[in-house]
Amino acid sequence: MSERKRIVIVGVGLIGGSLALQLNEKGLASKLIGVEANEEHRNKALELELVDEIMNLDEAIQNSDVIVLAIPVDAIVELLPGILDKVDKQIVIELGSTKEELIKKANHHPKRGRLVATHPMWGTEYSGPEAAVHGAFENKAVIICNPSESDADALEWTKNMFKKTGMHLLEMDAVAHDLHAAYVSHISHITSFALANTVLEKEKEEEAIFELASAGFESTVRLAKSNPGMWVPIFMQNRENVLDVLNEHISQLRKFKSCLEKENWEYLKELIEGANKIRKIIK
Amino acid sequence: MSERKRIVIVGVGLIGGSLALQLNEKGLASKLIGVEANEEHRNKALELELVDEIMNLDEAIQNSDVIVLAIPVDAIVELLPGILDKVDKQIVIELGSTKEELIKKANHHPKRGRLVATHPMWGTEYSGPEAAVHGAFENKAVIICNPSESDADALEWTKNMFKKTGMHLLEMDAVAHDLHAAYVSHISHITSFALANTVLEKEKEEEAIFELASAGFESTVRLAKSNPGMWVPIFMQNRENVLDVLNEHISQLRKFKSCLEKENWEYLKELIEGANKIRKIIK
Repeated sequence: MSERKRIVIVGVGLIGGSLALQLNEKGLASKLIGVEANEEHRNKALELELVDEIMNLDEAIQNSDVIVLAIPVDAIVELLPGILDKVDKQIVIELGSTKEELIKKANHHPKRGRLVATHPMWGTEYSGPEAAVHGAFENKAVIICNPSESDADALEWTKNMFKKTGMHLLEMDAVAHDLHAAYVSHISHITSFALANTVLEKEKEEEAIFELASAGFESTVRLAKSNPGMWVPIFMQNRENVLDVLNEHISQLRKFKSCLEKENWEYLKELIEGANKIRKIIK
Repeated sequence: MSERKRIVIVGVGLIGGSLALQLNEKGLASKLIGVEANEEHRNKALELELVDEIMNLDEAIQNSDVIVLAIPVDAIVELLPGILDKVDKQIVIELGSTKEELIKKANHHPKRGRLVATHPMWGTEYSGPEAAVHGAFENKAVIICNPSESDADALEWTKNMFKKTGMHLLEMDAVAHDLHAAYVSHISHITSFALANTVLEKEKEEEAIFELASAGFESTVRLAKSNPGMWVPIFMQNRENVLDVLNEHISQLRKFKSCLEKENWEYLKELIEGANKIRKIIK
């Protein structure tokens, strides 16, 4: 951890851009190289000084010590084998929101050890380099998946990098990760998307409806602004877990519906008191 | 609006306590009197100096110019006729989250004109006098329901009071209010309660599940901490509207479920892009 490294950020958007800011501030990078398919994002990333320069992927791999993948999970799965083909001693860190499919694919690769699969539990509903923020990741959790499959030096450097950005580390296997992520992240996005659609549907006939939108509404619906380019691939890759949780969630909603239909206020009170137990988790 | 008034706050909790702070700061009250059924809350309200003194309801009515009802909607409906029986020139302002049942009941009363039915669109998931915050209501909307049914002096004073607390005023009839509130407030609470129950159910078998709860999860689930004493009566009084919205919400969720089941990723993308239109409402 003594020397600064040449770090490539593949995908200089919300996550990659925010990490670049942290790597700079914590003195972890001797050089930050951006790889970015979107021309507008490339220019913006340079203008905002998120990275020092832009290269194409092959050139960036050759000129780097660390390659960070901060692109949608379908792009990670697609690009990862080609990247591993080209790396020698470089460390490849991927930051995707789903793990099982990706790790299954990487496991066949002779360079599997260079890859560290991670999921920093931070994000916002915005995207692109302009969405990058200072101090992101601080006091948040990061999951390291299947750490024993990574080379010791790659794992150690990655762990230190996350610690320096203020994150606390958890280790988990890929299958457990995807299940848990469905519960504590993916379902929240589906409920929020569906809630937005519920209300937007009504707005067609009732123009005034949003004049009274309150902070509570904003809180539950803000994730509905999230980018489909990021989220469709997550739902594709975590399809079965998300379906299980969604089925459970619909059945929980049906309990509320049944209470209202039958005017069973005692049971409604119990359901709400049960939900209040979330206080022990979220202060 | 020139002279300060003696103001009674019935229910010195989150809403009543926050309003008391504003009334004090804006110089609207010559005296603030609390009426509070819960002894612990009574003591806390005095200790936090939310009100100057505590009285019982009858005594408070006799010694006041304005009576503000900041209690659960079932308690408003129950107490309102007795309060109107006892008022002379006092102004009665109620702050409940549902309107139709309450106004229907008040309309038979000879003192109906003294009542101003309002709904300040602000709240948090916390309750009790300790949940009161400074600067609540600032830049938020307040709905005045059926304003033509209130006496002109009562309406004018109430409007000025809300303006001085930094709110912008909307007028709406009670029936429209309850429909809109179901969409932009009540359904958010049901989805949040149900989401908490979904995840808490899973936690029974998976202890580690909350270690990776992220900001997105917290945002969609925070309303699940809300008090059943406040919310059960809201759902009772707005039962039909909430049922309609809940049915629509479940059918929106089923569209997501169907996309996942059929692996219809193109339609999933469309659903998410549709939900993204919430950006025009929530910046």
